[in-house]
Amino acid sequence: MVTRLSHFFLRTLREDPSDAEVASHRWLVRAGYIRRQAPGIFAWLPLGLRVKAKIETIIREEMTNAGAYEVHFPALLPREPYEVTGRWEEYGDGIFRLKDRKDADYLLAPTHEEVFTLLVKDLYNSYKDLPLSIYQIQDKYRDEARPRAGLLRGREFTMKDAYSFDYTDAGLDASYMSQRDAYERIFQRLGLEYVIVQADAGAMGGSRSEEFLHPTPIGEDTFVRSAGGYAANVEAFTTVVPEPIPFDGLAETVIFDSPNTPTIQTLVDHANAVLSAPEGGDFTAADTLKNVVLALTHLDGTRELVIVGLPGDRDVDDKRVEVAFAPAEVEQATPEDFERNPLLVKGYIGPWSETGAILGEESATGIRYLLDPRVVDGTSWITGANIDQMHVHSLVAGRDFTADGYVEVSTVRAGDPAPDGSGPVELARGMEIGHVFQLGRKYAEALGLKVLDENGKLVTVTMGSYGIGVTRILAIIAELNNDEKGLIWPASVAPFDVHIVAAGRDAVVFDVAEALSAELEAAGLDVLYDDRPKVSPGVKFGDAEIVGVPKIVIVGRAAAEGQVELWDRRTGDREVVPVAEVAQRLRAR
Amino acid sequence: MVTRLSHFFLRTLREDPSDAEVASHRWLVRAGYIRRQAPGIFAWLPLGLRVKAKIETIIREEMTNAGAYEVHFPALLPREPYEVTGRWEEYGDGIFRLKDRKDADYLLAPTHEEVFTLLVKDLYNSYKDLPLSIYQIQDKYRDEARPRAGLLRGREFTMKDAYSFDYTDAGLDASYMSQRDAYERIFQRLGLEYVIVQADAGAMGGSRSEEFLHPTPIGEDTFVRSAGGYAANVEAFTTVVPEPIPFDGLAETVIFDSPNTPTIQTLVDHANAVLSAPEGGDFTAADTLKNVVLALTHLDGTRELVIVGLPGDRDVDDKRVEVAFAPAEVEQATPEDFERNPLLVKGYIGPWSETGAILGEESATGIRYLLDPRVVDGTSWITGANIDQMHVHSLVAGRDFTADGYVEVSTVRAGDPAPDGSGPVELARGMEIGHVFQLGRKYAEALGLKVLDENGKLVTVTMGSYGIGVTRILAIIAELNNDEKGLIWPASVAPFDVHIVAAGRDAVVFDVAEALSAELEAAGLDVLYDDRPKVSPGVKFGDAEIVGVPKIVIVGRAAAEGQVELWDRRTGDREVVPVAEVAQRLRAR
Repeated sequence: MVTRLSHFFLRTLREDPSDAEVASHRWLVRAGYIRRQAPGIFAWLPLGLRVKAKIETIIREEMTNAGAYEVHFPALLPREPYEVTGRWEEYGDGIFRLKDRKDADYLLAPTHEEVFTLLVKDLYNSYKDLPLSIYQIQDKYRDEARPRAGLLRGREFTMKDAYSFDYTDAGLDASYMSQRDAYERIFQRLGLEYVIVQADAGAMGGSRSEEFLHPTPIGEDTFVRSAGGYAANVEAFTTVVPEPIPFDGLAETVIFDSPNTPTIQTLVDHANAVLSAPEGGDFTAADTLKNVVLALTHLDGTRELVIVGLPGDRDVDDKRVEVAFAPAEVEQATPEDFERNPLLVKGYIGPWSETGAILGEESATGIRYLLDPRVVDGTSWITGANIDQMHVHSLVAGRDFTADGYVEVSTVRAGDPAPDGSGPVELARGMEIGHVFQLGRKYAEALGLKVLDENGKLVTVTMGSYGIGVTRILAIIAELNNDEKGLIWPASVAPFDVHIVAAGRDAVVFDVAEALSAELEAAGLDVLYDDRPKVSPGVKFGDAEIVGVPKIVIVGRAAAEGQVELWDRRTGDREVVPVAEVAQRLRAR
Repeated sequence: MVTRLSHFFLRTLREDPSDAEVASHRWLVRAGYIRRQAPGIFAWLPLGLRVKAKIETIIREEMTNAGAYEVHFPALLPREPYEVTGRWEEYGDGIFRLKDRKDADYLLAPTHEEVFTLLVKDLYNSYKDLPLSIYQIQDKYRDEARPRAGLLRGREFTMKDAYSFDYTDAGLDASYMSQRDAYERIFQRLGLEYVIVQADAGAMGGSRSEEFLHPTPIGEDTFVRSAGGYAANVEAFTTVVPEPIPFDGLAETVIFDSPNTPTIQTLVDHANAVLSAPEGGDFTAADTLKNVVLALTHLDGTRELVIVGLPGDRDVDDKRVEVAFAPAEVEQATPEDFERNPLLVKGYIGPWSETGAILGEESATGIRYLLDPRVVDGTSWITGANIDQMHVHSLVAGRDFTADGYVEVSTVRAGDPAPDGSGPVELARGMEIGHVFQLGRKYAEALGLKVLDENGKLVTVTMGSYGIGVTRILAIIAELNNDEKGLIWPASVAPFDVHIVAAGRDAVVFDVAEALSAELEAAGLDVLYDDRPKVSPGVKFGDAEIVGVPKIVIVGRAAAEGQVELWDRRTGDREVVPVAEVAQRLRAR
């Protein structure tokens, strides 16, 4: 059909919105696709809704191809099922909760595992009913602490969430691969390059989990990959653990004065000045054992201090910490924490003291002590002596100190070996565009979803969960497809197939543009026709550039001679062609 | 495409759901279209979602034909705009309110006038931008006190709400008629008979307002209509006021003993025993003036008693009362109210007493006294004397008592004259299926939506608001289209175009059914194919009946001879036809 700009609900803006931090936010607002209603909450204008509908159509088609059926759940759901699985509490401040007039608790659902599980439990009871994959495209809510970057991290957003139900692990694998394949087709159709990386199942609590990341330097996520094909996000990366070293012949622990050395760098400089390194070289940060004090806040509100020991050339990675200690919330220990634990001497903390173990459950402080997996038995360290201005050296793991466990929280570096032996990894950045999980039996167990198997025995169902953020994808496409003039949509999701500009005041311009619009409409194209009678060509061109339909036809003075211009928004190329050839040329591209 | 029942997510139920009060609720649950999540909150299963999508498509097409553009607002909106228009308070307990993590107030929007107004204010500023009509199809929330009847009165529901913006009254009239015409086309396409009735704009606060009602004896709304073409819902009906009667020659007021006559009937019986009626006949209830004590609770929480005087042969109509006193909430006066106002003698209340006015602002009680418009000056009444066991007769309106105003709260009766002079009205019942309002300048005024007119002068925009309850319409169609076996959809909204049943165990049955499915798919039909290998024909027929696709093809034993049966779900007719003719026959219907 033909949509006329003279009546269309659109106003482009000359100025960037003051709160726009990223290109997609800036251009989607300026080009009239979305408008902010509250922090992280947007209204969709006609142009935005058209692009969103195109993305949804592609997703629906591929879900159908994957044998999934569409359902639709309400956003407003009762507390009970989320209470059963523990997520009512786990979500903390991250969800919107409310009460109805009868004081019953509800939430605006951030994700729907529980109610999909209950729905299948309600309808199905036999292995013959399985496998089943069902999905919805639905508006979800999360009360983000810092909604930002426009649609990239909003508080209301549209998701496609699919769930699979099987009664065998092999069945789950097949359902998982079917959704994973569908995701590949979806991102190919959307023109979005992707890398599939191993991910941590995190709070969703499952087994196999992969993310689809779009690799881009402006991505907010870091992932690692090896030339040999390994790819994982940093949260899921696992350290290759070195072989332990025999204690025989290792030097004895020595305590030494180390005035004014509360940092790794000052400690290394001091050690090189007063000690001699075992192999005759210099000490480096890698020879020191850094002890980081973290404060966990558990779901029940209790606060626990934990100390992590890691090589001094590494830091604690915030995202890896978050995943390692979830669902507890983690922060750095505060001055008050140190005051309450006078045995901890800031800048000089270590796992050993002359008077006995100071860390670990069997220790004077009772504080849990967790180690980076690289700190294997027999490794020898320079670390704090738990006395102000004092350190120890030749402190040997397994001989002089032990830990309560190991934890994967150190930063990952380029050159670290991939856990699958495929060589050293490099670091790259990307944006998450999809996520596939094997949930396993966690939700089915909690909510009692069982079916009768071939032998008439009740077995617990195993599930998968598969998500694509529709509005997030839209923003990412906008983020990747723009220039200094405005948006440039890929044809598969452009709000219109072609944008016709009547550029001039002569009647023939409008006559030709009108006829061309009708012809292209008849050819099945969705036409945006800039028929505004009193708007200058310059303003119309500017609007065409900002709106970003990839194919533009300029009908100008040469229309009288049957000539128009084809304008490629992406390359900027303009080409004069006979108006009679336009339909064919647009189809051919 | 072809959807196979062997994999489709569907389970029909043999039993009615225990909470189903109405046929639509019963069948939509039993046939696997919806599932309850919480009171008045439902999930949509694949069948239900298909019907809903068809209704939405029809609405979208007619909105586009009416020149309206689609937008989409979030359900979660900030308090501020609703505060400005006063609706944050007016909605009382009827909306869901919540706070975000920063303690800011939000609501789940029950309707979107405010934010549409602000959006247009944000984008437009000139008369040249108008007229504009924009709409959304969106999930809304109301915290109904008694959610019931399944989708008919839910707490989450899908609405199409459109809003028009004009700068002249004539423009508003044109926009209004354009939407009204679109509604007529929508209901015609949905196969829903309708009556357009005058409605009270009520809480929306506008001028012209009409409802589309589907006339049906099972409707929850009462409306009136005359043979001459008048139609209104009872809330909007206005009384034809009789001419006043001169006071000359009217009898003097007389107070009389009337023991044990606290009701109209006992009073009439007593009057006929002790008094003689003026025209020699008997007194009837119409000769008495009934005084009803109502308690209003205003928005600010204050409670006010109001007394309404009306002819004794009429009652106060709850819906008319609600509209007349909105936004105050109204209930009958309680025993406590009478205790606090000892001058009110229950059963013997009247507007007059021997010691002076007892009702009205200038009276001893200070209670407002409002009259039915029929109580014109010069009418003479038997009514309470404000003394226990005493009444008065020949009490003349305008001579012996006056009121603080008139109010339209009496019941409407068949035979009452239509206000437009088109004759007596009859009463009928219907279900509301759409509503069109002229809001006027109320919202634009409150929120500052002005544009420059032709003379460069700022003028306030005038608006219309137009709503169709999508999920409600779906339920109404289901309510009107079912029998003792299940649902029977009109073809325009049926979840599938045709339902093919492979009825038998022979391979030829499945081969023919398979080939027919493919043929009908190729012909552009949406096919539901019951290919379940081990399910008996009887169960398949039962499922076909409950699901309610109007056209069914039974592929049975005669398939070997190229014969199948066409089964019309509505009429029950079955006809044997050659399988080669099925496509053509289905198209021809």
